[in-house]
Amino acid sequence: MATAPPLVDGTTVFSAESYFATQPPPTSLQLDVENVSGFIKRHAASGRNVVLVTSGGTTVPLELNVVRFLDNFSAGTRGATSAEYFLKSGYAVIFMHRQFSLQPFSRHYSHSTNPFLDFLEIEPPTSSATASAGAQIRIQPESHAELLSVLSAYKDVHAQGLLHTLTFVTVNDYLWLLRAISQEMGVLGRRGMYYLAAAVSDFFLPRQKMSEHKIQSGKGSLHIEMDQVPKVLKPMVEEWAREGYIVSFKLETDLNLLIPKARQALERYGHQVVIGNDLHHRKYRVVLGKKGGAEYTETWIETSPTAHTEIEEEIIRELMWRHQKWIEKGVVKS
Amino acid sequence: MATAPPLVDGTTVFSAESYFATQPPPTSLQLDVENVSGFIKRHAASGRNVVLVTSGGTTVPLELNVVRFLDNFSAGTRGATSAEYFLKSGYAVIFMHRQFSLQPFSRHYSHSTNPFLDFLEIEPPTSSATASAGAQIRIQPESHAELLSVLSAYKDVHAQGLLHTLTFVTVNDYLWLLRAISQEMGVLGRRGMYYLAAAVSDFFLPRQKMSEHKIQSGKGSLHIEMDQVPKVLKPMVEEWAREGYIVSFKLETDLNLLIPKARQALERYGHQVVIGNDLHHRKYRVVLGKKGGAEYTETWIETSPTAHTEIEEEIIRELMWRHQKWIEKGVVKS
Repeated sequence: MATAPPLVDGTTVFSAESYFATQPPPTSLQLDVENVSGFIKRHAASGRNVVLVTSGGTTVPLELNVVRFLDNFSAGTRGATSAEYFLKSGYAVIFMHRQFSLQPFSRHYSHSTNPFLDFLEIEPPTSSATASAGAQIRIQPESHAELLSVLSAYKDVHAQGLLHTLTFVTVNDYLWLLRAISQEMGVLGRRGMYYLAAAVSDFFLPRQKMSEHKIQSGKGSLHIEMDQVPKVLKPMVEEWAREGYIVSFKLETDLNLLIPKARQALERYGHQVVIGNDLHHRKYRVVLGKKGGAEYTETWIETSPTAHTEIEEEIIRELMWRHQKWIEKGVVKS
Repeated sequence: MATAPPLVDGTTVFSAESYFATQPPPTSLQLDVENVSGFIKRHAASGRNVVLVTSGGTTVPLELNVVRFLDNFSAGTRGATSAEYFLKSGYAVIFMHRQFSLQPFSRHYSHSTNPFLDFLEIEPPTSSATASAGAQIRIQPESHAELLSVLSAYKDVHAQGLLHTLTFVTVNDYLWLLRAISQEMGVLGRRGMYYLAAAVSDFFLPRQKMSEHKIQSGKGSLHIEMDQVPKVLKPMVEEWAREGYIVSFKLETDLNLLIPKARQALERYGHQVVIGNDLHHRKYRVVLGKKGGAEYTETWIETSPTAHTEIEEEIIRELMWRHQKWIEKGVVKS
């Protein structure tokens, strides 16, 4: 039997409050917030629903001059795909993603699996040695229809100003951005949704414990001890985004833990939906856990691995409907 | 003062031999080796020089069903750029890179900094709602010349079969691939060059110590203890690639450590060149350390941050010249 790296007690326990009081904000925070604020106000004024989609993994640097870091597995597929379906459904999207992770639209043309250079042709065929001003680049006929569809949607979204993109790298960048954007989104009231698909580290190395330079090898093994990242869903629900519709994700590799963990998260933080997925079936099967009053309900969404549909289309359809009910409930109450 | 995470002694010390005897090979190894073997033999027969370029960072998974991993900072810029200049100089290139890191040619069109969707136009302009079969995609006139140049070089290289690409993710994938490819390259004799630009982890978690499932948070801090990755330059020089021209890289953040570390590596492993670079100036300044007999020489290569040249062009020009002398020396000797 493999044994887990031991978990030990005894290090500092950070609350959200003590975290932000002791860890420095990213240098770009103020500028990022100014930019996103304009985007939010414009859509709040027009009565459009706005969703914050977080996507990709966060890093935990081990050194101030960072060479090594802990990371969480995520290419950003769930977030990038979901953002596209939110846009198709009329939402304005704040896409807050890990630098270099997948993005809506361009995700269809990953440099590794579907490189765009492969569907470009030179006409007349030419070699680099004889490349002349007369040669023209054209799209391979068999790739034209799909690219036209992706490109048209991309151009529409940008022409209408419906997509605002921000990037993070470290878990510290992520936490500061999440808090600031949630607070800015307050003006949206119930029209704001939070779709927290990023794979956020549970552990971090406080600034005060970081090594300035690259950790030197050659002196034996590496020993790292990390503190827990504070759970920010609680302050999100209670302070940062009181009226928002908050959807969190739970990824597990052990299917037996998925349902109890998802349920536990809802009970602990009091937000609206937890989407549970297991690592090996996350593209075809998720479970939506929802708590209404004392009642807990689960909805399974499944697609066939051989079908051409993307499960995110189903997830977003279900969430839009629930979000709409949430908005209407707020209107009736007030 | 920040303090470094402590380094402790006392865990297993792996030699290259005990590493490969205890850590399992990646499942794709055999197929990867068969494919690269054909590429090498073809170019060996035609008398062309072949370089193995390694690029990007390696991961160290903390779990068998991997959610978390340690990583080394690297977008793969050095390796991808260098590979392009080796190709321009007539080398056949085996490009062994971290999955999703930058690649030659497509590196010019990163989805984040220069997205290719931005230089495509729809003609006549259309919205997705009215997209018709008649609309055509064309390249923005102002982007045409550069894309034509990149695309022509890309098509030439592929038409001539000069580039062979393999991917790795973990440090274990990397080590097994490096050994196997080095051994296959033996048929090239002195015509084989090894340009080891990948950022390889110094530490790893042996399979036998890995947790099967995602490490659970909520039980305190995270404690990780890792063993040292064996130094493989020594067996490369002495066994795997005896006649090869081997270039290794040394990245430091502390400039004071750079020269002594580079020199120490050459003395310890007995290969041909160490390229030293510091994290913050690596795009504009490197130092080539070389040992000939008892003599150690250093050559600094610098470019201006404002110039339009890439430093890799200078590095590869210098190395080609030295490699050529190395080849000739072998011919004279035998």
